[in-house]
Amino acid sequence: MPRMFVPGPVDVDDEVLQAQAQPMVPHRSKEFETLFRRVSEKAQQLFYTQYRVFLTASSGTGLQEAAIRNLVDRKVLSCSNGAFADRWYEVAVSNGKEAEKLAFEWDQPVDPDRVAAAVKAGGFEVLTIVHNETSTGMQNPVKEVAEAVHAAAPDTLILVDAVSSLGGAKIEMDAWGLDMVLTSSQKAIALPPGLALGAVSDRALEKAEMVGNRGWYFDLVRMEKHRLKDSSPATPAMSLIFALDLQLDRILDEGLENRFARHSAMAHRVQEWAEAHDLSVYAPEGYRSQTVTTIKNERGIDVSKLNAFLKERGMRIANGYGPLKNITFRIAHMGEIQMSDIDMLLEAMEEYLNQ
Amino acid sequence: MPRMFVPGPVDVDDEVLQAQAQPMVPHRSKEFETLFRRVSEKAQQLFYTQYRVFLTASSGTGLQEAAIRNLVDRKVLSCSNGAFADRWYEVAVSNGKEAEKLAFEWDQPVDPDRVAAAVKAGGFEVLTIVHNETSTGMQNPVKEVAEAVHAAAPDTLILVDAVSSLGGAKIEMDAWGLDMVLTSSQKAIALPPGLALGAVSDRALEKAEMVGNRGWYFDLVRMEKHRLKDSSPATPAMSLIFALDLQLDRILDEGLENRFARHSAMAHRVQEWAEAHDLSVYAPEGYRSQTVTTIKNERGIDVSKLNAFLKERGMRIANGYGPLKNITFRIAHMGEIQMSDIDMLLEAMEEYLNQ
Repeated sequence: MPRMFVPGPVDVDDEVLQAQAQPMVPHRSKEFETLFRRVSEKAQQLFYTQYRVFLTASSGTGLQEAAIRNLVDRKVLSCSNGAFADRWYEVAVSNGKEAEKLAFEWDQPVDPDRVAAAVKAGGFEVLTIVHNETSTGMQNPVKEVAEAVHAAAPDTLILVDAVSSLGGAKIEMDAWGLDMVLTSSQKAIALPPGLALGAVSDRALEKAEMVGNRGWYFDLVRMEKHRLKDSSPATPAMSLIFALDLQLDRILDEGLENRFARHSAMAHRVQEWAEAHDLSVYAPEGYRSQTVTTIKNERGIDVSKLNAFLKERGMRIANGYGPLKNITFRIAHMGEIQMSDIDMLLEAMEEYLNQ
Repeated sequence: MPRMFVPGPVDVDDEVLQAQAQPMVPHRSKEFETLFRRVSEKAQQLFYTQYRVFLTASSGTGLQEAAIRNLVDRKVLSCSNGAFADRWYEVAVSNGKEAEKLAFEWDQPVDPDRVAAAVKAGGFEVLTIVHNETSTGMQNPVKEVAEAVHAAAPDTLILVDAVSSLGGAKIEMDAWGLDMVLTSSQKAIALPPGLALGAVSDRALEKAEMVGNRGWYFDLVRMEKHRLKDSSPATPAMSLIFALDLQLDRILDEGLENRFARHSAMAHRVQEWAEAHDLSVYAPEGYRSQTVTTIKNERGIDVSKLNAFLKERGMRIANGYGPLKNITFRIAHMGEIQMSDIDMLLEAMEEYLNQ
């Protein structure tokens, strides 16, 4: 089956697409409440958490906003080494918070030592960090950063954007001591967009209760009150939750470790192919994403022409993001993509390069 | 076909449910941008507006929050005669605005004269009003209220929640001089929940540019910048937009006037049935919703038992909302429901009452 090798919205399995088409039920009903609880409980496994997982009718950015409005009275430290890290910083600023950017080069991972020094100095209520930068294919060392923060400033909450990795790479929320981990439906979970999932620790929720001006739509305290009744404050994105119910079964049937290994193997295959073709990987060794690989366009490939060639074969890849457009391109290997799909893509790319 | 006679999520046509199951496409692509523009343009007809219609991945409450955060620096006047009017007031308060409630009895419509007096006195930047109260089955006289506000305080923006009526009753945004009209997908438009539609006037958008702390996710100014490129700031709820594309064709094929007449005829039929069975309608004559009828439970019907009886026949109605539970019940007649469905329901209800 031809595929989109773009980092979201990704291809969705036919049966999962079809699960959306189930008839509606009233959302304030036993039927739906049972489903809502079942889905939330299964979702906890993806986050490796005993804490609650909220489902919101929004994109992942909606939960970036929820994190800021609920968990920050005043001061945020935002790790920045990519476009979505910067978006979270902008979300903080546009919500009137005092946000400080801890900037790294885009081709360098977040450095735990620099984070430790910054949080020690600063009195920051939260740290924001992106686990997997969709723009650069960087996987930041969230576990090591969390350890550093716990040692340097134990009261600082650790908020993680795992939009393009959760479900494709292992993120152990509880073991790593993370306070909020958020993702959206249309990346490694391989659902259509429009649904976001956010796991929130007890101490984060306690903090939220003390923060003013949380708003209504993304108020975590309000969500928790409803969650305890297997419900949500606003009408939920029902058809996407139907699909999530099935997709979580499919993910858990594959086995989380198997799923992560599949993503990792595809990442390595793409990295090796690039290097064998005089193209280097943007992110340094040890920090490379398991779900999307950003390749430096050192051969000056016309990415539009390459994509036109691929599209004739039912495939497409993604150009570089923002300032990295044309000087990089991206191959996503997440969700439903299998090694055989990657082989098919790389063969076609080889054919294009040999023209 | 058996039906849910509940005021949302409503039954969705099979073909429309199926439209959700189309394969994903990248959202930053010509294919999707063309669809996004086409849908927005068709949606303008539902609002009777030349202004832009934004589509957000959220419930209708998300756009209540958008309205408050974008169009109010300080002072809101909230008309209150039902649960969803009160929700909008709460949204304003929880976003740190100075909100004043102009309260009416729940069984009385908003009174244009009282609104005029209040806006004249108050220096309110916006007035919020619910067109069709899902909780009470009241249709407020939005046109007359808007006229009164224009005369008394022409700078006050008029914001209308039409969540359970838009697409089922005529709301002429431009002719009535409204500044923002919002709705959600799962009521009279008859789609699954998770998508909200908000039409915004030029003067409202100009106001938004002057308002601080608008946040990111619901920032109308940011949405407008993207809309001009047929896009949205955050990833859109793609499968729901696929379904909206088809559903707008179905709605426009039926003809808006025909659609409104169908809803109105069903409303009258339900009202007549109630009165013929010693049950009175909660909302006064002249202010009765075209999409949902709230009936006073003057015969002390056990609503749960009635619903259990109806469910055996593949139907269900809604109990009263909040404080009106059991002392009222609600019959929705919106979206895909036809007069023949209403006849089937009323026959079954008659059978129950005659037991």
